[in-house]
Amino acid sequence: MTKVTVWNEFRHEKESEEVAAIYPDGIHGQIASFLKTSGLDVKTATLDEPEHGLTEAILADTDVLVWWGHIAHDQVDEEIVNRVHKRILEGMGLVVLHSGHMSKIFMKLMGTSCDLKWREADEKERLWVVAPNHPITDGVPEYIDLEKEEMYGEHFDVPAPEELIFISWFEGGHVFRSGATYKRGNGKIFYFQPGHETYPTYHNESIQKVITNGVNWCAPTSWVYPKYGNAEPLEKIGGK
Amino acid sequence: MTKVTVWNEFRHEKESEEVAAIYPDGIHGQIASFLKTSGLDVKTATLDEPEHGLTEAILADTDVLVWWGHIAHDQVDEEIVNRVHKRILEGMGLVVLHSGHMSKIFMKLMGTSCDLKWREADEKERLWVVAPNHPITDGVPEYIDLEKEEMYGEHFDVPAPEELIFISWFEGGHVFRSGATYKRGNGKIFYFQPGHETYPTYHNESIQKVITNGVNWCAPTSWVYPKYGNAEPLEKIGGK
Amino acid sequence: MTKVTVWNEFRHEKESEEVAAIYPDGIHGQIASFLKTSGLDVKTATLDEPEHGLTEAILADTDVLVWWGHIAHDQVDEEIVNRVHKRILEGMGLVVLHSGHMSKIFMKLMGTSCDLKWREADEKERLWVVAPNHPITDGVPEYIDLEKEEMYGEHFDVPAPEELIFISWFEGGHVFRSGATYKRGNGKIFYFQPGHETYPTYHNESIQKVITNGVNWCAPTSWVYPKYGNAEPLEKIGGK
Amino acid sequence: MTKVTVWNEFRHEKESEEVAAIYPDGIHGQIASFLKTSGLDVKTATLDEPEHGLTEAILADTDVLVWWGHIAHDQVDEEIVNRVHKRILEGMGLVVLHSGHMSKIFMKLMGTSCDLKWREADEKERLWVVAPNHPITDGVPEYIDLEKEEMYGEHFDVPAPEELIFISWFEGGHVFRSGATYKRGNGKIFYFQPGHETYPTYHNESIQKVITNGVNWCAPTSWVYPKYGNAEPLEKIGGK
Repeated sequence: MTKVTVWNEFRHEKESEEVAAIYPDGIHGQIASFLKTSGLDVKTATLDEPEHGLTEAILADTDVLVWWGHIAHDQVDEEIVNRVHKRILEGMGLVVLHSGHMSKIFMKLMGTSCDLKWREADEKERLWVVAPNHPITDGVPEYIDLEKEEMYGEHFDVPAPEELIFISWFEGGHVFRSGATYKRGNGKIFYFQPGHETYPTYHNESIQKVITNGVNWCAPTSWVYPKYGNAEPLEKIGGK
Repeated sequence: MTKVTVWNEFRHEKESEEVAAIYPDGIHGQIASFLKTSGLDVKTATLDEPEHGLTEAILADTDVLVWWGHIAHDQVDEEIVNRVHKRILEGMGLVVLHSGHMSKIFMKLMGTSCDLKWREADEKERLWVVAPNHPITDGVPEYIDLEKEEMYGEHFDVPAPEELIFISWFEGGHVFRSGATYKRGNGKIFYFQPGHETYPTYHNESIQKVITNGVNWCAPTSWVYPKYGNAEPLEKIGGK
Repeated sequence: MTKVTVWNEFRHEKESEEVAAIYPDGIHGQIASFLKTSGLDVKTATLDEPEHGLTEAILADTDVLVWWGHIAHDQVDEEIVNRVHKRILEGMGLVVLHSGHMSKIFMKLMGTSCDLKWREADEKERLWVVAPNHPITDGVPEYIDLEKEEMYGEHFDVPAPEELIFISWFEGGHVFRSGATYKRGNGKIFYFQPGHETYPTYHNESIQKVITNGVNWCAPTSWVYPKYGNAEPLEKIGGK
Repeated sequence: MTKVTVWNEFRHEKESEEVAAIYPDGIHGQIASFLKTSGLDVKTATLDEPEHGLTEAILADTDVLVWWGHIAHDQVDEEIVNRVHKRILEGMGLVVLHSGHMSKIFMKLMGTSCDLKWREADEKERLWVVAPNHPITDGVPEYIDLEKEEMYGEHFDVPAPEELIFISWFEGGHVFRSGATYKRGNGKIFYFQPGHETYPTYHNESIQKVITNGVNWCAPTSWVYPKYGNAEPLEKIGGK
């Protein structure tokens, strides 16, 4: 059974009644809630816990980490970022949601600014599936409508996605590569754009399906780490 | 005319008579020398210069940076690494040679460990062109033989190359993805594996041709940086 | 100087006064016209000429072929398709425009159905640049607005683009991967979606810039064809 | 349970005692044999059966098709090729082995010549894993040694693999991209190079593991075919 840790900075929910009304158990609580219904073994962790809830022991017991952060990216300790990074290279999957595009861990994995255009204007978003044969879109309709979302628009400064899964249409005239996969070391990464804190996006069943599929896709294939360093020859060199 | 800065840590040449005999003007001097013959505007910079020779002014006057480093990666200042990184995202090209695979700037751009297998055994390397239609292999024969090189072997822990240009065969039984391109922000990156300091690799004409082509391919297309941040709608939202 | 042949089925212009009014010299005439102004050596060819204007001699004198077809795809002779295909694998570039997505040559190169959604509804299209560092978008603004175009929508059944250059937003709520590159053999291919015959799309200066850049990008790097077939060993086998 | 059909042209086994001794039940029989032991539902089909054993009914009952062909590629009927192609675009997986690189179905899917270098010289092949985190290499050692195989060497004229899984080292000095994945329509494709008929390659347990993993990876995610053709707008156009 895949072991999932849902990480949330958990600040908006404490500071805003509007957000708390949508996510009374926190964004992490809501995400954990629907992941559990699909047979995953789910725990949560938040920024203000010791070591941000991401101790060596917790990470050692995590197959896939889900990440939601926004206003407190800079409060995430470098040492924890490096620890998560190492675990990903070893094989842990990572699902990065929404404003997590500017989290330290995602930026470290991408190597770019991860910057983009954005706008909070209560506008309609429509996510189009461009990879209908991908496990992440299994059981998902050809598009998902969200009545109101934050606009994220191109250009999105990330490496070209290894697999482009969704493209979003926004009412205000922008588009966005809103679902994308990457591999780094043994680890698989899925970035998925929707989920502004003031909208009930994670209550949408199609969005839940995508995130659940994303977690399953990111689950490690193997924890066997390649052997690096000095290597003996396997054939004779120079006739010897 | 493309402006190139060839950066070298320039330590082996000072510490080893063997290396100094091969590269009396330093590895940077040798690389600059053949780049100049193809009409590029070339200068050099080395680790022990102030700001490693990579001042704001120098970088602002550089279209493509060539990087050779090995034993002193950790002596490269973080601030300079960040400066180079920013310049690459803006559009500067980067050619990373040989042991530069573990340089701070390359690791920051890749997001992985960049680790690999290696062996110093005076063995033959043969670089096979796998992208014969790529500008980097223009005028290069279908393979390049190097009588003696350091073995770099798989697994090479980098993101899957956006374009794989060369695969190397080693006498001792290993293979390596020895030429690869990436894009990060506006910047183009070419990694090219040969060039151990104790072999005369940068005197080989085919290797020189590849590096020259690589510099030209990495030259910036444009310095127009995308606009990021808050964006006004281009269409009416909610009928307004 | 790059030699370009602009191919057009040239039927709509003869059958529709509306189209003829927009393109009095044919779509091929208009495209040839602006390509010439940028210093390219341009000729044209059309379906009803002998061998569709694509004789061995013409192809041997063509570096980049531009293709516009729509209602007469099935009238293109298989032998000519195979001849064009062979020339592309040897190194000729191919720019496929608009409804050329269902041409025999494009389908043969892609290996998929190349099918998509479409709608003729006089709707606005906005093409967003998603590869701002690519030669094809050099000098192009961050988006191009077309007041009226035919909608082409996802899912577009092509192999994942090797480079995704544009994503289009359509007023009616759809999106499309509207600029994409591929390589097949020595040949480079650029698909670019705009250009329905009843709209003056090829009179738009930004569209002209993209097509001109596309032609230049597709120009052959080299006509050196790899050696295939039986190959002698380069090293001793079994100690012999 | 994934339904697999193993297709073999089944000629070498009838014409050569040497081959028959290695594969008394045919290459298809041997492949079917080890696939069955891993819980797959396996049947076989061969060239000389009516409709090459690939009737509409058989294909409709096939999730993944395994293809081995060599001397009789040209005897495969175009109609059957088109039928298999259609089924792949709908979602059927395809595992192409060894000389299947020049089969009509593989060439149709790739859009290139699929040509390569080759040599029959009883030489050693070593397949290096370059995607250690991929399901196809799960449980496979970092390299697989084959005492004797036919050499297939670069350049291999296929589109750049979407995922490169193996690179082979050959004793005679060549290299080859020997494991590669592609997607076409809903279908997943895995090309795997080893398997010359005069060597006992398909008796090797690591090779069996790779092929079994490949079949499982190619299994369809979904048979939901995208909707193409004329599409109604989802938003008002021109304010109407």
